[in-house]
Amino acid sequence: MFKAIVSADTLRDTLDSVSVLVDECKIHLNDDGLEIRAVDPANVGMVDLTLSADAFESYEADGGLIGVDLSRLEDIAGMADAGQLVQLELDEETRKLHIQIEGLEYTLALIDPDSIRQEPDLPDLDLPAQVVVEGADIDRAVRAADMVSDHIALGVDAEKELFYVDAEGDTDDVHLELEREDLIDLEAGDARSLFSLDYLKDMNKALPKDAEVTLELGEEFPVKLHFDFAEGLGSVTFMLAPRIQSD
Amino acid sequence: MFKAIVSADTLRDTLDSVSVLVDECKIHLNDDGLEIRAVDPANVGMVDLTLSADAFESYEADGGLIGVDLSRLEDIAGMADAGQLVQLELDEETRKLHIQIEGLEYTLALIDPDSIRQEPDLPDLDLPAQVVVEGADIDRAVRAADMVSDHIALGVDAEKELFYVDAEGDTDDVHLELEREDLIDLEAGDARSLFSLDYLKDMNKALPKDAEVTLELGEEFPVKLHFDFAEGLGSVTFMLAPRIQSD
Amino acid sequence: MFKAIVSADTLRDTLDSVSVLVDECKIHLNDDGLEIRAVDPANVGMVDLTLSADAFESYEADGGLIGVDLSRLEDIAGMADAGQLVQLELDEETRKLHIQIEGLEYTLALIDPDSIRQEPDLPDLDLPAQVVVEGADIDRAVRAADMVSDHIALGVDAEKELFYVDAEGDTDDVHLELEREDLIDLEAGDARSLFSLDYLKDMNKALPKDAEVTLELGEEFPVKLHFDFAEGLGSVTFMLAPRIQSD
Repeated sequence: MFKAIVSADTLRDTLDSVSVLVDECKIHLNDDGLEIRAVDPANVGMVDLTLSADAFESYEADGGLIGVDLSRLEDIAGMADAGQLVQLELDEETRKLHIQIEGLEYTLALIDPDSIRQEPDLPDLDLPAQVVVEGADIDRAVRAADMVSDHIALGVDAEKELFYVDAEGDTDDVHLELEREDLIDLEAGDARSLFSLDYLKDMNKALPKDAEVTLELGEEFPVKLHFDFAEGLGSVTFMLAPRIQSD
Repeated sequence: MFKAIVSADTLRDTLDSVSVLVDECKIHLNDDGLEIRAVDPANVGMVDLTLSADAFESYEADGGLIGVDLSRLEDIAGMADAGQLVQLELDEETRKLHIQIEGLEYTLALIDPDSIRQEPDLPDLDLPAQVVVEGADIDRAVRAADMVSDHIALGVDAEKELFYVDAEGDTDDVHLELEREDLIDLEAGDARSLFSLDYLKDMNKALPKDAEVTLELGEEFPVKLHFDFAEGLGSVTFMLAPRIQSD
Repeated sequence: MFKAIVSADTLRDTLDSVSVLVDECKIHLNDDGLEIRAVDPANVGMVDLTLSADAFESYEADGGLIGVDLSRLEDIAGMADAGQLVQLELDEETRKLHIQIEGLEYTLALIDPDSIRQEPDLPDLDLPAQVVVEGADIDRAVRAADMVSDHIALGVDAEKELFYVDAEGDTDDVHLELEREDLIDLEAGDARSLFSLDYLKDMNKALPKDAEVTLELGEEFPVKLHFDFAEGLGSVTFMLAPRIQSD
């Protein structure tokens, strides 16, 4: 059984963070909130999202699992105005989700969870460097890198105590350095890894520009990007596998 | 003879209400105002529009008839800023319309009215149910229905005293109910008809979101949508033929 | 040697005025400011732009010449917010331009100036009529003409003391007249020339809508359009060759 009421904004933020990586996902309807884990078809980018029951106006669930078409659910959530509430109720028998927005009722056919790609386990990596920046800085770096290349290097220089971004094109290069005072926080440790810009661009779309984003980095290791949403009651961790460096 | 001055906004609202259905139309230049009637090529959607001479800054006409290319006239009206006046003058000899907007003069070649599809007679139907809603509610219903289907059912449940919208897709459904207190007015009588969503989407484009829209409905009968514009000095009635219900 | 700091807005206005005509250009790094002259591949439209050293926050140059890809430089300038400063520094050895915007460094490969089309000499014409109008009026005339034709005639009627624009389409015509009182200034002299609307549309894109634009006109002669930017510290002259009148 699942029955919940949530603001349209929170629902949209939740869906957007997952839909940048996959088209369909499984949603765990735990008794203390929602959980979504997903990996893209190429096994390069992963997302782990939780949304606490406290982020809802009302929330009742008992541990079920549903499969949803994300773009369809995003379209429905998009029908609501910013302040409006969205009521969700699972019909166990028909396996349909009833969605109500002020008199408008949408009946959404669910997807059999077994037909959806298996959920990943985000590995528990002990990464040597950790940087906390504004989402707007990542946006800037990603857009600049996109002008010259389809790869982007993220790194930390432990000695100089700075976080840097490098993108090398055929003729032009982009380099961004953020020193300790430009950062919200820095745990310095030498780190540098190369990533596919396409994936980082997709993840960047889900990063709130005004949020604190925590990056964990290593030497040719995956990067973890973490941020909160829904006033701290929602939490997203992206993990992106590195590209092999070719010099 | 025809010579008139009208605000760009009023001219644009007039043209937009007709151009959602047809590309060309006949305009009756009556001595008390304009009148336009048109039907789409498939004979499914009709429009009957009047704009009183009082909606103009100045107006002189003696019952002529002109044929116009609507998109061309819309482009010209689009050149004016919101507050600006548009001056229209018919040159009987050359059969051209001179349009002036603050120093800018556009000479528009008219179309032979005989070459334009014949004007329809909107049948005088005695429909059992009448609903008055905000344009925004129709917009919401049409957009929601569009997510699941290309048909939409509009109905009134006389007993429950409510207006409803139904759209059934292959897997998902949309249902909107507006009770008496959500409506501006309701004359209850059992009614339900199925319509092509494409037509209703086009008509919806012309509905001011903040206007009162009157719908007249019957059992498998056409729907009439009526609204005023130009501060009550203009009046539009759309009529849309029903689709045959197939269950 | 070249090293300068300039506001992103001024840099963008500079580049936009040239990029409407050409994709690549030579920039003269004179000691008193920048100068750019360029002609389009068909030799129909020319631009002569100067930007005084006083328009910069700081400026050091000694007469060098660089070749740049304009759209690339525009993309980089587009990364800066309206108020931000852009730092430019030429690396003589690598022939690359280092561009810094608040921690973000872009290394732009320059183009060999010899591979860029030769700079034009804007002929010193003694044109009989001169009109000063708001950029918004030219915008209006160009957009209206574009609805009916791909040519536009600009003229001055010395006797009636007015500036006019004519565009004749297959069925429709556009005519705009601005009398002395509608103009910022007028030096009347008979003038009328026909121009390609495509070129004028491109130049119009670079005209600030609120700027005073000076047009110099003759009888079947080129038109010169002149305006200032960067609070008078930058200056642009466009010249457009006439089309042969065919009646």
